Amino acid sequence: MSAFNDATSVRSRPGDSDASDRTYDVTLDPGWAILGKPNGGYLLALLGRAGCDIVGTTHPLAISGHYLRAPEAGPAEVRAVEIRRGRRASTSRATLWQGDKPCIEALVTSGELAMFATDYTSSPAPVLPPPQECAPPETHRFAPEIFEHCELRLDPATVPFPTPTGEATIRFWFRLRDGSEPNASTLILATDIGPPTVFNLRHYGWAPTVELTVLVRGLPAPGWLLCETTCQLVAGGWFDENATIWDSTGHLVAQSRQLALLGEPPAKD
Amino acid sequence: MSAFNDATSVRSRPGDSDASDRTYDVTLDPGWAILGKPNGGYLLALLGRAGCDIVGTTHPLAISGHYLRAPEAGPAEVRAVEIRRGRRASTSRATLWQGDKPCIEALVTSGELAMFATDYTSSPAPVLPPPQECAPPETHRFAPEIFEHCELRLDPATVPFPTPTGEATIRFWFRLRDGSEPNASTLILATDIGPPTVFNLRHYGWAPTVELTVLVRGLPAPGWLLCETTCQLVAGGWFDENATIWDSTGHLVAQSRQLALLGEPPAKD
Repeated sequence: MSAFNDATSVRSRPGDSDASDRTYDVTLDPGWAILGKPNGGYLLALLGRAGCDIVGTTHPLAISGHYLRAPEAGPAEVRAVEIRRGRRASTSRATLWQGDKPCIEALVTSGELAMFATDYTSSPAPVLPPPQECAPPETHRFAPEIFEHCELRLDPATVPFPTPTGEATIRFWFRLRDGSEPNASTLILATDIGPPTVFNLRHYGWAPTVELTVLVRGLPAPGWLLCETTCQLVAGGWFDENATIWDSTGHLVAQSRQLALLGEPPAKD
Repeated sequence: MSAFNDATSVRSRPGDSDASDRTYDVTLDPGWAILGKPNGGYLLALLGRAGCDIVGTTHPLAISGHYLRAPEAGPAEVRAVEIRRGRRASTSRATLWQGDKPCIEALVTSGELAMFATDYTSSPAPVLPPPQECAPPETHRFAPEIFEHCELRLDPATVPFPTPTGEATIRFWFRLRDGSEPNASTLILATDIGPPTVFNLRHYGWAPTVELTVLVRGLPAPGWLLCETTCQLVAGGWFDENATIWDSTGHLVAQSRQLALLGEPPAKD
């Protein structure tokens, strides 16, 4: 039914079903990659599913991934450990292994989300033109594999191609192309699906994530997600990227921050 | 020399010095507490020291703590595990145990920081009155134990006492009373030292941290730190709190976000 659901599925081993530490077999799908490397948000969503499964919860609430090395598409495993089961939230650890090496280690605090009413927000959804008036990034020849599954529409005011705006903010609409509606896992993906905000500072190189923490704040309504990413600081070769995600009704449903390295710019030709 | 340095010291056991997993003895100091409970930023700074020690690094760069239960002041231990040593960054796991129970589990990516020049920032230091024109929170009878060590001066425009402003932002100056200058560990403390921003929404109750991730972005210059905390969303009994810290020269040196629960307001009398 949902390509994303399939690509993030985790299969526990028969003898493991009652254990407080389990190994899950996974297949890292080459379709959810950027230049051959599985996307960091996709991988974190997959770890979130294992992290919830082992403590019997439904939704990740806060998930912190520390990225050790980039895995290849193909078979891998997630080793998950129950840390604590609680009434409102439970915590587990989930580590992605490939070969004999850990690739990402994540802590997952999880529980049950709802479509919470907003009691207070300082961050109403930004106003941008409707999706049909926003160009897909492919228009600008930015077309990684993952965009075969993910449909983005960039706010013209923040498009980093062909000329950077000079301000490290990118706003865009996002939905899955197969028509499946957003859920808590999709929100984790959404926080890392946009072009790096530092593209708008002319840093067009690779931007490897070192750490990414996502807070899932509510279940999204069906329809497009509205995403805004910003960078507060570039210094010493490091940058941060902060994402805020609203659903189609304007509710804030996820927040994230990542620490990433400024990659080398592509060679001039 | 520094009370904070002493209170966050971790003592490895003799047989452990070369192991890739180690147990550190620690003493949770009752002076760094709020109503008897050791402060969450203080505890995370302590875990950061163990997390650096086990991989032979100097400074935490990104530290994610998931809070399981609040420890008491007194003896405790930190169990740390090396995950990966790298050239620019290394990763470890550090868990605070008391009795036979884990209290906080943290992932620590660490390395070597400098007083980096700012290449780009979208977040210049806010302008507020100088410390001598800002009142300490004790003026408003908000005086937890930890303020015997930590000196805060609140921007009058954001003081939540006696009347909440209605806007979930608090700005303040912060320094240690013993005259020791800020370092990377102090920045972790600084992100969690202010009154909860939701005090400005009249939520004066306990505000237990569930998850706190801190990015340390550079070494601070001597002098007062300038701290701004904001909340983006209160919904379903949960709130986020985002801290940004600048040093006395106006450089952005740390960022954090935490997910916390809205506690019960104090009983009316």
